Amino acid sequence: MLEKILELVGNRQFSAVRAMLADANIVDVAELFESLDEADAVVVFRLLPKEKAADVFSYMSKEIQKRIVEGITDVELSGIVQDLFIDDAVDFIEEMPANVVRRVLSNTNHETRALINRFLQYKEDSAGSLMTIEFVGLKKEMTVADAFSTIRKTGPDKETIYTCYVMDDRRKLEGIVTVKDLLLSDSAALVGDIMDTKVIFVSTDDDKEEIAGLFQKYDFLSLPVVDKERRLVGIITIDDAVEVLQQENTEDFEIMAAVTPSEAPYLKTSVFSHAKHRVVWLMLLMLSATFSGAILAKFETAFQVLPSLVTFLPMLMDTGGNCGAQASTLVIRGLALGEIRGKDFLKVWWKEIRVAMLVGLVLALINIIRTWLIYDHNLLLAVAVSMSLFITVMIAKSVGCLLPIAAKQLRLDPAIMASPLITTMVDACALMVYFSIAKLVLHI
Amino acid sequence: MLEKILELVGNRQFSAVRAMLADANIVDVAELFESLDEADAVVVFRLLPKEKAADVFSYMSKEIQKRIVEGITDVELSGIVQDLFIDDAVDFIEEMPANVVRRVLSNTNHETRALINRFLQYKEDSAGSLMTIEFVGLKKEMTVADAFSTIRKTGPDKETIYTCYVMDDRRKLEGIVTVKDLLLSDSAALVGDIMDTKVIFVSTDDDKEEIAGLFQKYDFLSLPVVDKERRLVGIITIDDAVEVLQQENTEDFEIMAAVTPSEAPYLKTSVFSHAKHRVVWLMLLMLSATFSGAILAKFETAFQVLPSLVTFLPMLMDTGGNCGAQASTLVIRGLALGEIRGKDFLKVWWKEIRVAMLVGLVLALINIIRTWLIYDHNLLLAVAVSMSLFITVMIAKSVGCLLPIAAKQLRLDPAIMASPLITTMVDACALMVYFSIAKLVLHI
Repeated sequence: MLEKILELVGNRQFSAVRAMLADANIVDVAELFESLDEADAVVVFRLLPKEKAADVFSYMSKEIQKRIVEGITDVELSGIVQDLFIDDAVDFIEEMPANVVRRVLSNTNHETRALINRFLQYKEDSAGSLMTIEFVGLKKEMTVADAFSTIRKTGPDKETIYTCYVMDDRRKLEGIVTVKDLLLSDSAALVGDIMDTKVIFVSTDDDKEEIAGLFQKYDFLSLPVVDKERRLVGIITIDDAVEVLQQENTEDFEIMAAVTPSEAPYLKTSVFSHAKHRVVWLMLLMLSATFSGAILAKFETAFQVLPSLVTFLPMLMDTGGNCGAQASTLVIRGLALGEIRGKDFLKVWWKEIRVAMLVGLVLALINIIRTWLIYDHNLLLAVAVSMSLFITVMIAKSVGCLLPIAAKQLRLDPAIMASPLITTMVDACALMVYFSIAKLVLHI
Repeated sequence: MLEKILELVGNRQFSAVRAMLADANIVDVAELFESLDEADAVVVFRLLPKEKAADVFSYMSKEIQKRIVEGITDVELSGIVQDLFIDDAVDFIEEMPANVVRRVLSNTNHETRALINRFLQYKEDSAGSLMTIEFVGLKKEMTVADAFSTIRKTGPDKETIYTCYVMDDRRKLEGIVTVKDLLLSDSAALVGDIMDTKVIFVSTDDDKEEIAGLFQKYDFLSLPVVDKERRLVGIITIDDAVEVLQQENTEDFEIMAAVTPSEAPYLKTSVFSHAKHRVVWLMLLMLSATFSGAILAKFETAFQVLPSLVTFLPMLMDTGGNCGAQASTLVIRGLALGEIRGKDFLKVWWKEIRVAMLVGLVLALINIIRTWLIYDHNLLLAVAVSMSLFITVMIAKSVGCLLPIAAKQLRLDPAIMASPLITTMVDACALMVYFSIAKLVLHI
């Protein structure tokens, strides 16, 4: 269908385009704009039905939003900003350059401008930055019939109507009532009697990652946000929570690969910005490998006497790194999902020690056979290498499982303690162990 | 509050427990059972209000479910299974040992048993395995008032009432109508006139990962599932989609760390099972490091002449591995989020080549200085190492970005092409480059 619209745009058949746009899904229409050139984008945007324009706008990428804003008139811009949900308006403004922001703010009415300014003050990772104010508010004294008439009156502009929030005169949150509860109750029943008063709520300062976790744990569709006086200031909806969840996952993937996280998609990030997000970690890790180099330098005589010792280095270091990465990844993920807590560190360590013993034994045995076969049936060498391998596995699993928990306890992001850092540390240990054992067993 | 209940259970004050359970959140109550011993679990379960028991049951872990089932009578069991949503019943049955399954099935009525058997036949990763049949079905000819009375009559047992599905007499899906649409329409209006006919639906065979992606893209709360004749057979709700999303993420983390994925939480997985999920990959990677060892063996004379060459191995191999891991992680994540497609491979490669040049230059320069300072102002050695480093970075970034896309094209999981495998491959290349350059530049 998108191809069809693009074709119609190409043929300047705008009335047909208008008809198709009216029918199409807003997410799909937003995607369509990615394929339009600058001039067409504004033309097509003006063909959107008025009630759909703001919705489509909120699903566009920042570049397209900027392009549209630069192409439309002040009156059109004012209409769009007024129609946006407040959280989408703030998201949009936060990403725009200063001149665009000025123009947007000067084209919104006083009330909206004050609201936007208030929202811009919430910290980036807080509930406040994620919430929207478009919710249905009810009063305890209302009957179910009153509630429905409030919903009918105010509902069209709300982000969700399915959970309604009951507040007192000072806007203090007293309970919630779902449309399901309302539908299944008698129309004369009082909202105060059917509302659920055991409400789980969050505060504007709460961390958005923890909030996403609450959605996942309790299967909420929305969650109320209150200020310090427990007054309801906004709600967070499941779609925003899912986005946070995915962002957090992406961030963890990036940090675990020693990349400074960024929210921009891969292909839309410039080469320079990609390089900037990677080079610092690479540099630090490269410099810390100097340490392993120094250990090797200390044992130079050993591999001058027996050069084949060097040929085991990749195997030893890689296996150590891999064992450490396995342990650290599982623990980092367990911490992120709340399956592992700080107080479990002894349990985790004990598990990893036993896993390391099992895995280390299997690998050591295979390695004895492999070495014995390849290195002229040199059993002593085979034993020395396999002993080092076993100890390296033990160290790698211990370091890998304990460092993320330690980071968590220190209020650092456990994801830092992933493969790259663990590998560098385990390398140094592995080399130390390997050459010490080699000298001892092989008498060099 | 959970502590309070645990305390009351300890003091055998069961009527107080009953009152608190009636009030508590079902997810919290399910969590409470994790802390109860075997005998208490069944006692407390029996204190739950009848209408809450099945809901709480569906949030319990498999072990607790098994414990409860083994402790309650056939009549109680029959009641629970009958009250469960069909997707939760099937999830539960799939995890139970054969004797429990037999007992469960023999205590359900014919209709439910047939349903469960049909659901058990859907493939594990398909929409069919994820869907539930508890949705509200409407007819085109109904008025809005009729629709509300249907919702009132059937709503209490449905997983969601907020999106209703309009079907013809042969259960073919004709449209959807939300409770919001219904509330905002005149009560005499016909469902057929207000329903949305441009419905996005999935088929029972569709992959659940793709379905989770649809939820994320379109911000759905539920999604209809149809059979081959476009007859509506079930719906998938957002909470299940979020769970799939998180499972897929966990799976990617595990595969990327060379761990065979498993759904069990870290602490609940036995040592033996942990070892089993890790040892195969470690073994394969260890054996493939033999290849790097062989390359090193080939260059034995080089490091007999200049032993300090060996001291750069950890730095070179780790930096290569880290560069590869950065590229592969970003590309794997980009593929998972749909930001990168197979056809983008040239764009991605060109980006990585330029990033590699920038990053490689910075690292090489720093390394020249470092080597020059530490290794007695040996400029030739410094240049040889830095050249190798630069080329290694180029290779690592290329391999790291291209292999995941290649895997995707071959319909393999791109996550396989992550740090551990990339590191092993890059190691071999780095060694080859390093010693070739060293021989050339240093004339050894």
